[in-house]
Amino acid sequence: MKLLRYGPVGSEKPGILDDQGRIRDLSTIVPEIDGAALSPGGLARIAAADPADLPLVGGTPRLGSAIARPAKFLCVGLNYSDHARETGKEPPEEPILFMKSTSALCGPNDDVEIPRTSDRTDWEVELGIVIGSTAKYVPEDQALDHVAGYALVNDVSERRFQSERGGQWVKGKSHDTFGPVGPWMVTKDEIADVQDIDLWLDVDGTRRQTGNTRTMIFGAAFLVHYISQFMTLEPGDIIATGTPPGVGLGMKPPTFLKAGQVVTLGAAGLGEQRQVMVQA
Amino acid sequence: MKLLRYGPVGSEKPGILDDQGRIRDLSTIVPEIDGAALSPGGLARIAAADPADLPLVGGTPRLGSAIARPAKFLCVGLNYSDHARETGKEPPEEPILFMKSTSALCGPNDDVEIPRTSDRTDWEVELGIVIGSTAKYVPEDQALDHVAGYALVNDVSERRFQSERGGQWVKGKSHDTFGPVGPWMVTKDEIADVQDIDLWLDVDGTRRQTGNTRTMIFGAAFLVHYISQFMTLEPGDIIATGTPPGVGLGMKPPTFLKAGQVVTLGAAGLGEQRQVMVQA
Repeated sequence: MKLLRYGPVGSEKPGILDDQGRIRDLSTIVPEIDGAALSPGGLARIAAADPADLPLVGGTPRLGSAIARPAKFLCVGLNYSDHARETGKEPPEEPILFMKSTSALCGPNDDVEIPRTSDRTDWEVELGIVIGSTAKYVPEDQALDHVAGYALVNDVSERRFQSERGGQWVKGKSHDTFGPVGPWMVTKDEIADVQDIDLWLDVDGTRRQTGNTRTMIFGAAFLVHYISQFMTLEPGDIIATGTPPGVGLGMKPPTFLKAGQVVTLGAAGLGEQRQVMVQA
Repeated sequence: MKLLRYGPVGSEKPGILDDQGRIRDLSTIVPEIDGAALSPGGLARIAAADPADLPLVGGTPRLGSAIARPAKFLCVGLNYSDHARETGKEPPEEPILFMKSTSALCGPNDDVEIPRTSDRTDWEVELGIVIGSTAKYVPEDQALDHVAGYALVNDVSERRFQSERGGQWVKGKSHDTFGPVGPWMVTKDEIADVQDIDLWLDVDGTRRQTGNTRTMIFGAAFLVHYISQFMTLEPGDIIATGTPPGVGLGMKPPTFLKAGQVVTLGAAGLGEQRQVMVQA
């Protein structure tokens, strides 16, 4: 199933794609695409509904973040062997974890703000894991049982705020609109192999990132297991799993986003995003 | 006003202390002590009620986190000049920011879990700022206008997870129960000078931390201003503002918490907490 949220900012409604790729209104089945809807019971209720019986949504509404505000928006750093190389850093021995403020969540095609004083706003196409059931101290071989599905994420980053403003990356990761998620949350049954998903990202139509989740250093199952040793993952939580090579910071010379530029990105089976950069 | 949440885990109700220090049920005025209740309109509605008219809560119920799950639980590192000295580090040139998972929030007197494999679970008494209205790019001289009040926080930390497990402090700050908040959220009108609050913490009755918010390197107004340059602060968000000297990591030799030990802490005007350490 491909679940989504559509409508104006702050008043999104839940939706589902039908077999012709049209949006159907899910409001009569679940009130939101949130932790409750993404839990096993919620997903079973949605699966029991026939999209053809649900109201067709006309026009081309704005899409919101595919998942309503979760408790946690976690990210993994330097998790692609080929991306670690481009930054000149050794691949990490265990996952680097950081948080993004959930206030950064936005729709897949919303404008992305360049923060005031920023001169290093950068892009990062990523696979997002969406949690479906509470995970605390889960073994790796049971970790994917706690996953509801996957979504495309652009982990927008301000490199100077991230690295030159007193440690801890959260400062460079949390500006409003730095977390486009969607267009859909795809349930895991539709993803044949989470470690074989092609990812790409263009800036103004020029290909900048190309990758595949098979070069992730730590795979999805290990990440859920690993993070659950440090904190409890809850339904709706999002884990952005790191980015493949080709970020602006890794270009020679480093190249960053300017107002008016357009970023497009996609992942096989997870859909595409398009963002226009604007000045905050 | 002193606002609080009382009742069993997961079904807390909103309450307020009356002039004799007894809990009155606030449920008829606000459904929760959350962002909506802490916004100017919510606080005005609460202020308009006479606690003497509200139902008296009998017995000594468990207290929950004084604030319901916010979007953000931010923390500031090394923010006391005397604490920075004890860690052997230079005082930071600008605030060190990190996040704690909001799943770590718990009541002021709940048991605190020592994570599995932990051998460095430590204590940190802190002043918590509670946001009352949305703050994005606010000037320092208007920053406190966005504050609803203050609460006592124990920023429980696992030092090995924080510093020796691959960078980014969030790993050592986010275990369940690592964020006792309360007993109350005290509205800012009751705090004469936020930069003159005494703080203390005992382990098994022995004084370990003593401090006063006057030695904070970055004061409350600056912190709200500063953080609002990087992300949008929202009603209900909590900022733990750093800890004074006396943490276990700074002792010679370093000394950490064990199951069965009791941590008590307090702040002038903000009440006291008591936690028994248990093994996760």
